Amino acid sequence: MELKVGILGASGYVGNELVKILSKHPKTKLTYIGSKNNVGQSYNALYPHSNLSLQFASEDLSKIQLDVLFMATPHEFSASFINDALLKRMKIIDLSADFRLKNLRNYELYYHFTHPNEKLVKEAVYGLSELYCEEIKKARLVANAGCYTTCSILSLYPVVKEKVIDLSSIIIDAKSGVSGAGRGAKIENLFCEVNENFKAYAIASHRHTPEIEEQLSLAANEELKIQFTPHLVPMQRGILASIYANLACDLDEVELRKIYEKYYKDKLFIRLLPEKTYPQTHFVSHSNFMDLNFCIDKRTKRLIIIGALDNLVKGAAGQAVQNMNLMFDFDENLGF
Amino acid sequence: MELKVGILGASGYVGNELVKILSKHPKTKLTYIGSKNNVGQSYNALYPHSNLSLQFASEDLSKIQLDVLFMATPHEFSASFINDALLKRMKIIDLSADFRLKNLRNYELYYHFTHPNEKLVKEAVYGLSELYCEEIKKARLVANAGCYTTCSILSLYPVVKEKVIDLSSIIIDAKSGVSGAGRGAKIENLFCEVNENFKAYAIASHRHTPEIEEQLSLAANEELKIQFTPHLVPMQRGILASIYANLACDLDEVELRKIYEKYYKDKLFIRLLPEKTYPQTHFVSHSNFMDLNFCIDKRTKRLIIIGALDNLVKGAAGQAVQNMNLMFDFDENLGF
Amino acid sequence: MELKVGILGASGYVGNELVKILSKHPKTKLTYIGSKNNVGQSYNALYPHSNLSLQFASEDLSKIQLDVLFMATPHEFSASFINDALLKRMKIIDLSADFRLKNLRNYELYYHFTHPNEKLVKEAVYGLSELYCEEIKKARLVANAGCYTTCSILSLYPVVKEKVIDLSSIIIDAKSGVSGAGRGAKIENLFCEVNENFKAYAIASHRHTPEIEEQLSLAANEELKIQFTPHLVPMQRGILASIYANLACDLDEVELRKIYEKYYKDKLFIRLLPEKTYPQTHFVSHSNFMDLNFCIDKRTKRLIIIGALDNLVKGAAGQAVQNMNLMFDFDENLGF
Amino acid sequence: MELKVGILGASGYVGNELVKILSKHPKTKLTYIGSKNNVGQSYNALYPHSNLSLQFASEDLSKIQLDVLFMATPHEFSASFINDALLKRMKIIDLSADFRLKNLRNYELYYHFTHPNEKLVKEAVYGLSELYCEEIKKARLVANAGCYTTCSILSLYPVVKEKVIDLSSIIIDAKSGVSGAGRGAKIENLFCEVNENFKAYAIASHRHTPEIEEQLSLAANEELKIQFTPHLVPMQRGILASIYANLACDLDEVELRKIYEKYYKDKLFIRLLPEKTYPQTHFVSHSNFMDLNFCIDKRTKRLIIIGALDNLVKGAAGQAVQNMNLMFDFDENLGF
Repeated sequence: MELKVGILGASGYVGNELVKILSKHPKTKLTYIGSKNNVGQSYNALYPHSNLSLQFASEDLSKIQLDVLFMATPHEFSASFINDALLKRMKIIDLSADFRLKNLRNYELYYHFTHPNEKLVKEAVYGLSELYCEEIKKARLVANAGCYTTCSILSLYPVVKEKVIDLSSIIIDAKSGVSGAGRGAKIENLFCEVNENFKAYAIASHRHTPEIEEQLSLAANEELKIQFTPHLVPMQRGILASIYANLACDLDEVELRKIYEKYYKDKLFIRLLPEKTYPQTHFVSHSNFMDLNFCIDKRTKRLIIIGALDNLVKGAAGQAVQNMNLMFDFDENLGF
Repeated sequence: MELKVGILGASGYVGNELVKILSKHPKTKLTYIGSKNNVGQSYNALYPHSNLSLQFASEDLSKIQLDVLFMATPHEFSASFINDALLKRMKIIDLSADFRLKNLRNYELYYHFTHPNEKLVKEAVYGLSELYCEEIKKARLVANAGCYTTCSILSLYPVVKEKVIDLSSIIIDAKSGVSGAGRGAKIENLFCEVNENFKAYAIASHRHTPEIEEQLSLAANEELKIQFTPHLVPMQRGILASIYANLACDLDEVELRKIYEKYYKDKLFIRLLPEKTYPQTHFVSHSNFMDLNFCIDKRTKRLIIIGALDNLVKGAAGQAVQNMNLMFDFDENLGF
Repeated sequence: MELKVGILGASGYVGNELVKILSKHPKTKLTYIGSKNNVGQSYNALYPHSNLSLQFASEDLSKIQLDVLFMATPHEFSASFINDALLKRMKIIDLSADFRLKNLRNYELYYHFTHPNEKLVKEAVYGLSELYCEEIKKARLVANAGCYTTCSILSLYPVVKEKVIDLSSIIIDAKSGVSGAGRGAKIENLFCEVNENFKAYAIASHRHTPEIEEQLSLAANEELKIQFTPHLVPMQRGILASIYANLACDLDEVELRKIYEKYYKDKLFIRLLPEKTYPQTHFVSHSNFMDLNFCIDKRTKRLIIIGALDNLVKGAAGQAVQNMNLMFDFDENLGF
Repeated sequence: MELKVGILGASGYVGNELVKILSKHPKTKLTYIGSKNNVGQSYNALYPHSNLSLQFASEDLSKIQLDVLFMATPHEFSASFINDALLKRMKIIDLSADFRLKNLRNYELYYHFTHPNEKLVKEAVYGLSELYCEEIKKARLVANAGCYTTCSILSLYPVVKEKVIDLSSIIIDAKSGVSGAGRGAKIENLFCEVNENFKAYAIASHRHTPEIEEQLSLAANEELKIQFTPHLVPMQRGILASIYANLACDLDEVELRKIYEKYYKDKLFIRLLPEKTYPQTHFVSHSNFMDLNFCIDKRTKRLIIIGALDNLVKGAAGQAVQNMNLMFDFDENLGF
């Protein structure tokens, strides 16, 4: 069996990564790539690193037949583009944020638009493969998890679920490579602005904050707030999150390791590194792995968790393909 | 009046920066550069970017007459090298950590040696120019403050002194360019290891932790502990610290700005940036400025401070020259 | 005496560098900065790395009184902006290409516009400080030399003038950092496009080709053609040119060194490096130096010259200030 | 059929790349990794980016049974390590230079040792897959081609073979990422030395010069000399060569394209890019492709060829695996 797959928004960095992974996937055939600007051009004319000669088509899907569609379009686009009729024709994995948040109010607060489709928001399954495996298998519409959020949630899930930390004390200091900002022509992302520079941005206001809070609140079964600060690193790929929380109980690293292993020992793409070996972004670069490790600081009674992933792979295109594998009952690591 | 100045340890990155600044300083003449390995070679034969043709001499100072000596030697060297007899012949600004810590026990815990000279540790003035201005003016021996520590302490000093934050809640997530690791031939600092990579290191164990704690405890007039995590950024210069603390009282950003201005409005090298403009390392690159700003997150009742400096300038060589200016009653910004 | 200086086009990378150098120059006062887009904003609100609080004004100079105006505007702007009336009110150093080429046909071929002011093209002095020192001293209008061209011409001038090479065999393989491409919001200059990438561009068609040819033909007193290929290096600053030519006579490196010394030994900003030490861009970074050295390959009877400079300094803003120093009879290295 | 493969020298950058490619190759099982320094450690303890848990063993192969051995050891090691007895037990692909040069005198001139095994030098097949396909299929010992040399030779082979250029006029200006310098702890390869820097090195004396000359002389059926200048680019991977030669006959780009197509149209890993699209190193990054294109400059009657490859893949480990595929009659692109 070979799936017919399509990508809408194939010309950005996430779209490029999808093309790369899907081109090597043994059970898919990429038959449609859509784009607003490049209609009629062949993919490898624009991106000579690729051997894909498929031509960009318009966003009109009315005559396109697909088993599954990946959407790597800007926020607010898929909210109105996706509807029940379309979902009857194909499964959709949406890489934008439009179906990730369950609380519609957060679209207004953080994305500045009123969501037009409450029903589909309810139906959509949050696409964090390790946590929603069973739901994803049955889903028509998967809201692929964000990059910072995947890294933050997977780092914290076991200790939040087990409530071994003070839930009001969570601080996530996250750092990302520049590809996370997309391929738009913005002065702030020029080489000469980014190189030899390091900065924080969207302090106390980043859009991934409510996404992390919603998911961790579900895990804790109580509402919690987090502190989230993203930073821009002069590199292309990779996210590393340094996470701080006060311990809520007496616990040593051996016991904590058992907790993490309980949740993650069977997860193909989560690597709890050996003691004293901490994640670095190049360990996960170009892979679908999420690496993590922790340290208990006895002086301060604080837990420090370090998590890392490749923002374009496990943080976007890779996880999307992992979700597709679940949806079509393939081996979870097919194509990687 | 022209000072005779010397540098012991002139071949590393900090030594190079000292040469650069002192070469342009209108009141100093660099007459001695000492090095273990390059004796007899001229400086610009080794470093063609410079026009200084002075030859490297040995570490033997017995026949060298100087007004002031800068020491950019490895930790544990100056602890036994500096003595009362030498200080009678010249003032010394030590850029190593050997005289920074007042609690001798911390040399054993964090630097793994027993300090041989308690008397001089007591005499030495901590070389953070803005906080110890008066003491530096009269000092024979200045223990130049560390790079992470200058950034952390200057960011926190006003709010610790005024106790508007919960002193047990301080978390410093700091990021540094690679020059902070020095010029040693280590695999971990090779281009191919550092580039396109981001990592944390020395988690819960970095040597600057006791230095920050000693100084902030003095400011608070009570003992406090901090959480300090350094990270390595794929760039050459710059430190940025993202600092978190719980507010201890109701306070808005206008009031907080007044507190910072109270301490820093007359400081030549501290720039409190305009509202909503946060420090970036390239703003301070190649300069002696320390930039800072803050944000109060009303959702979490937490204070977030962002501080930045150039680790080789305000974090090392620049502050050393600033201290020299104070010691010899020059304008504080001479040479910058 | 303190000059009133202005900069039109102060918001790009070259404009920024001019602000930086002129702010430290002991004999100038920056009283006007013009810009198309930022009128009314203060300089350091836009560029917090600077302490200059001067406000951007419009391009209208009718009420602005200046001793000298630097123009760092896009090509084709100053060709019609500069006129005799304006030159009667102030001297002008134009950093665009609009007055560099003497053969008007080359504007059509390489810049795709018809030059409107032949008279001023004739009057303008080519702003390569070392070659046109005397003419620059008397000039009203200086056409500041280009970045690649300064590096290429200074590397070749002595051997072309002395005709020790086959003039038809000159190949210039040049490499530049990204700031040479300016501060425009273009996808091709985004960090993720440039980093970890190296490419040639404008092969056999770059605009600096006729500029180099005109100047070297004047030196040779006969018309010559060169091969010029520029490349983009993933770094911010610096140009390095590797230049090849067949030797026209028997000559060893000692004799060749004498030729270079004959032309350059008194030039403050040209450094002929010691034997076997070849230029690297970081030797000249942030400085006004042009470094060079050569090698004679006896196997192939070819001369290889390596030249390097900082494209924003000696290749643009620095040479412009050097030219100003000449025009106003200041020490040539004032401000550096 | 599954081959037992081993790697001697698995801890450097080329060794790492071999591990990565061979781990995914469907017909090989990596059963031996040898190293001088890490005996007893598991591979992924040292390199957490990998999932390979195989332990490093010593260099003693007496009890190791393999179908094929890859050697990524320093120059001069395999010259005496490889012998007839060993070759009777396993095929060997040597990634060092020890068996690449046919003229033994060049080992003395360029590698400073006397080669001990003339007989095996004669037997060894030069491992440039596209040119020696048939010989490689039958070889016991393949001397894998060098990185600069693969790029240079493949760029020039058709025009040298067809003699459409003046063979005495070839100039190769080549640029490489830093991984080409290996993983040794050298100051010159530290991040702070390489980043924001560009330089030429080994001018008129690089070791790949005789390798290129030997092979191109064979293609031309006459002895020729080339000019070769390597440069270091602040990036990890990638080589780009800009090659210049005078045309020996009247020829347009259409005719030249036919010549290249004649030689390369069936080559899986050589991509002649479309007209006016020139190679960039990121097009070939992490792939086994060699990209090339050319331009005829009518003004100068010169041919300019641009070639690019990933120095660790097509320039080393990738081509080695391609050669293995040929030697064992697998599909040439298996594993890629």
